[in-house]
Amino acid sequence: MTKQKENTGGLTRRDLLGTSAKITTVAGLGGGAVAAGLTGFNTSPVARAAEGSRAEVKPGELDEYYGFWSSGQCGEIRILGLPSMRELMRIPVFNRCSATGWGHTNESRKIMRDGMLPETKTFLDSRGGVYLNGDAHHPHMSFTDGTYDGRYLFINDKANTRVARIRCDVMKCDKMIEIPNAADIHGLRPQKYPRTGYIFANGEHRVPIPNDGMILDEPDKYHSVFTAIDGDKMEVSWQVIVDGNLDNCDADYQGLYAFSTCYNSEGGVTLSEMTANEQDWAVVFDIKAIEAAVAKGDFQEIQGVPVVDGRKGSAFTRYIPVSNSPHGCNTAPDGRHVVINGKLSPTVSVIDVTLLPDLFADKIKPRDCIVAEPELGLGPLHTAFDGRGGAYTTLFLDSQVAKWDIEKAKRAFKGENVDPIIEKVDVQYQPGHNHTSMGETKEADGKWLVSLNKFSKDRFINVGPMKPENEQLIDISGDDLTIVHDGPTYAEPHDCIIVRTDIVNPLSIWERDDPYWEEARKSAEKDGVDLDYGEDVIRDGNKVRVYMHSIAPTFSLEKFTVKQGDEVTIIITNMDDVDDLAHGFTLANYGVAFEIGPQATASITFVADRPGVHWFYCQWFCHALHMEMRGRMMVEPRAV
Amino acid sequence: MTKQKENTGGLTRRDLLGTSAKITTVAGLGGGAVAAGLTGFNTSPVARAAEGSRAEVKPGELDEYYGFWSSGQCGEIRILGLPSMRELMRIPVFNRCSATGWGHTNESRKIMRDGMLPETKTFLDSRGGVYLNGDAHHPHMSFTDGTYDGRYLFINDKANTRVARIRCDVMKCDKMIEIPNAADIHGLRPQKYPRTGYIFANGEHRVPIPNDGMILDEPDKYHSVFTAIDGDKMEVSWQVIVDGNLDNCDADYQGLYAFSTCYNSEGGVTLSEMTANEQDWAVVFDIKAIEAAVAKGDFQEIQGVPVVDGRKGSAFTRYIPVSNSPHGCNTAPDGRHVVINGKLSPTVSVIDVTLLPDLFADKIKPRDCIVAEPELGLGPLHTAFDGRGGAYTTLFLDSQVAKWDIEKAKRAFKGENVDPIIEKVDVQYQPGHNHTSMGETKEADGKWLVSLNKFSKDRFINVGPMKPENEQLIDISGDDLTIVHDGPTYAEPHDCIIVRTDIVNPLSIWERDDPYWEEARKSAEKDGVDLDYGEDVIRDGNKVRVYMHSIAPTFSLEKFTVKQGDEVTIIITNMDDVDDLAHGFTLANYGVAFEIGPQATASITFVADRPGVHWFYCQWFCHALHMEMRGRMMVEPRAV
Repeated sequence: MTKQKENTGGLTRRDLLGTSAKITTVAGLGGGAVAAGLTGFNTSPVARAAEGSRAEVKPGELDEYYGFWSSGQCGEIRILGLPSMRELMRIPVFNRCSATGWGHTNESRKIMRDGMLPETKTFLDSRGGVYLNGDAHHPHMSFTDGTYDGRYLFINDKANTRVARIRCDVMKCDKMIEIPNAADIHGLRPQKYPRTGYIFANGEHRVPIPNDGMILDEPDKYHSVFTAIDGDKMEVSWQVIVDGNLDNCDADYQGLYAFSTCYNSEGGVTLSEMTANEQDWAVVFDIKAIEAAVAKGDFQEIQGVPVVDGRKGSAFTRYIPVSNSPHGCNTAPDGRHVVINGKLSPTVSVIDVTLLPDLFADKIKPRDCIVAEPELGLGPLHTAFDGRGGAYTTLFLDSQVAKWDIEKAKRAFKGENVDPIIEKVDVQYQPGHNHTSMGETKEADGKWLVSLNKFSKDRFINVGPMKPENEQLIDISGDDLTIVHDGPTYAEPHDCIIVRTDIVNPLSIWERDDPYWEEARKSAEKDGVDLDYGEDVIRDGNKVRVYMHSIAPTFSLEKFTVKQGDEVTIIITNMDDVDDLAHGFTLANYGVAFEIGPQATASITFVADRPGVHWFYCQWFCHALHMEMRGRMMVEPRAV
Repeated sequence: MTKQKENTGGLTRRDLLGTSAKITTVAGLGGGAVAAGLTGFNTSPVARAAEGSRAEVKPGELDEYYGFWSSGQCGEIRILGLPSMRELMRIPVFNRCSATGWGHTNESRKIMRDGMLPETKTFLDSRGGVYLNGDAHHPHMSFTDGTYDGRYLFINDKANTRVARIRCDVMKCDKMIEIPNAADIHGLRPQKYPRTGYIFANGEHRVPIPNDGMILDEPDKYHSVFTAIDGDKMEVSWQVIVDGNLDNCDADYQGLYAFSTCYNSEGGVTLSEMTANEQDWAVVFDIKAIEAAVAKGDFQEIQGVPVVDGRKGSAFTRYIPVSNSPHGCNTAPDGRHVVINGKLSPTVSVIDVTLLPDLFADKIKPRDCIVAEPELGLGPLHTAFDGRGGAYTTLFLDSQVAKWDIEKAKRAFKGENVDPIIEKVDVQYQPGHNHTSMGETKEADGKWLVSLNKFSKDRFINVGPMKPENEQLIDISGDDLTIVHDGPTYAEPHDCIIVRTDIVNPLSIWERDDPYWEEARKSAEKDGVDLDYGEDVIRDGNKVRVYMHSIAPTFSLEKFTVKQGDEVTIIITNMDDVDDLAHGFTLANYGVAFEIGPQATASITFVADRPGVHWFYCQWFCHALHMEMRGRMMVEPRAV
């Protein structure tokens, strides 16, 4: 294990990027940073073969933490077990899932479309009705009193400006909303106190409001928007127009403020324009002031939501100058400190939330809220915490994690000659987000740190032009940082949270009265069919509803017949009530396949425009005679 | 570790299923077998915490084998490293991938549509043009001289009757064909000798030929079809109509015969009809005889391919009676023995391929080719081999793997009092396929066995109604079978192969003249644009082609403008030539996202029917300024 204490010295962000003050040749900038990032790896694989056994969970042993992982451009959430780092489950969210039918079942499409803006519905009507992709960055759990409560997960979709909610009892997405006025939701965090409450979501890109084409290449008329979503109703509560581009965000432990890193104070639209200034901002939002304004009608309603103006000079916000293009935004479990990560600067800036009332009262200046600004190394992106005063910051360009002490950093900021850096550990390679066990809650326990590295290089056998990323598990329980596991992942280990197992208590069997299949229940009632044990084929003009139930290894309908051109809806209830006894319905050569969990109902609608005999079968293994679980759809040709 | 030697005694398949001879109440059958399968697990997790360290690959160490995994209803292929059992990569094949744009890029859609039957193209035209789901069961690598050669992987899609090929140099699917006349491709294996050569593919379900709706509920007019595909051209070479339903298949080491398990000798369409007979078959195909018939025109051409009649009594096939509903079909690395797994019988039947010439010459009877038929336990599904005469059979109902000796089984079959069973090991739970390192080749090395278990039950922390399956790694290098790793997986660990790392040598950077983007190359030539370093916006009526290249952290076009309603094609070349320096192109709020590997070109086409300013950005992490890699598409509204 290579470890070192070091100080980056007096480098400026321009030194880091190896460029002149005015960035004129962007390609040149890229080349320099790529070289720093991709060729500067630190030790040979063999030399780093370390003691991995601390992370091993032997056959039959159980993990101690749930890891909830985003998947970037895959659009899904993944559940891992820690410390084994084994992927236990995928939750399809912003993607199309072949196995569950997510994006195709009536239930999933309703969730996707219910929260869509009207113009998006119109736009998607001609292209399948729902988005099939997403860019899921930041998964976070709902809080009660400053710690996770096991109710929900929330996650953003940067690609299509959405926020989704996942029910932790069944580990399925139940709400997905598109955020009006904003473009391309990036940072997302739930309110920590008194409960969630709000989900704060950053619209990263500046666009015209409304973005209807009346304003095009006039960047001075672009805006970005901060959104507070009601996490219970999954509706937008209010929005704030801000200056700059919003990046990451977090909330305090008092229920008073939210914070966003904010770049492009220049209001530019190109890389060189956006990075011209020496400083950008951390924006602080005064939640109570905004709520009061909204309550008394002091807002503009745009696309049906209350929007207040929080641009510089507003009573609702304060813009704290920090170094150019800050990135990560992380509230410490001490309830007091918020770390703003420098990215293009070797520093992080620490805000003391107890000074914010004075800031909003204009008794102090924005920079007076900064109580520490340690230089940690090159490319600080995100910071995690151990609950013992220790902070762990990823250094992208250095390919390291720096452990530092918040109190020492404050003393150094006051002029004391003390080095806040405790230790650095090499990671493999280019870390982005990191996360500690329970680290974004007041119950941070300081046991494990995960470093989500963007490149794996030589750490795994070669799998072609596309390589896995590398998620490394680091034992932080002792004095030393010890990497105990290299975990390859498919695009992309963007962010994660690590939650104690006692907090999460999912069901194994669905409850029959679950709202998930409310529409199917209404349909069956209307058709006079028993949704539980019934089966029937209801013709309603050229609409045909086929109800059946499944008990391993059979579907209750062995066959049914429809006419070519019929709009067919298949509604299946899985009456098995054994753990893990999911069934599936695949209709061969029709592109139809979906999952039906134990005691669940699921449905799908399609046009039967292919005549002939089409076998349907169960594709979720259920029984010794699983392969025999099947039947036939017969489609009579139009012209017989 | 619980181990035992046991003999199942004189149980018949009916005893196993706990039913009377005539299966009248199918639900009752299900209940019994489910109970046997799901409640009879064998030991507590804690008691089974075993020595796992043999499988551990410490941080920085490299795996010794590639595992190529199917994913069942997920439709993808996964690459694992062994013995760490870490998932290294996903290869989208029969699915829609949000991260790569597979199923949306022009390149992937061309691959999917080029191999489609004309009526399927018509059928899909009204529903997005391509299937978005698949059921990928059996991944197998191309062979030369009886062992893997690292050229290609092949895999079936049971859901939509397809076979796909994956190039192992870039680990991407390059060909996908729909199989005419057949329904629902299940078993798939490549020719082992002299090379691949043929891919043998079983159409599992019996349907009318042609399946155009003129014949519907007349099961006696249904057929199933065995297909030989030319693996170099990815075209159907010939087909054989057979009796019964085809299940799994394999090939010999002589290049003379292929074998399929075949159930439903009854020609039924319901579970009780299909399982009425005491015996079904292993079907043997005489490749040379079929080739000769095809060469001299002795075939019927149906949907453009030569089809011969191989039903019982044909010169092209022999039907060897084995117990009812045989499942797995596995050729031993000794080049001589083929194991047919009983499924509903506690036995496996061993065919000696050296007897097959006499069988086809009618010198011996079909059953004379069976040289061993050991009783192994309840629910034998698949058999793997160690290259030392040892065979490993999964016992679904017993949740065990039985290790047995082929030669001892032959001696016992001849009447000698010898127990062929060497050892049994409990697996957790309900194993389906299994596979040994290099075990389906003549280079079987007897180091590792993977048991792909359909249920994980209590082996992992609870993740909701849907549970992971469990892939267990078993060390078979010594005298004992030792489970060293429990590996959870998302739907579904259907089958896998385990390949030595020296055989697989993927590229890290695409070659610029790769045929993958041949169409983009032609388009650029026609438009007079340099596909490498060029950028241009070509208007051609309401069709707009936008060419750009990318060098981290920039796209060469910072902005472009189109009109609402234009059909826009984005063509991007990634000119970075650094390992793993993939870029992506996400067009926000347009449902557009795709990957561009280093030195690759990729493209996508969509209608720009949403006016306004739309940011595009790179979603594959590329650079310290990755987040800044973006630009704008401006869409002028139709009515300004």
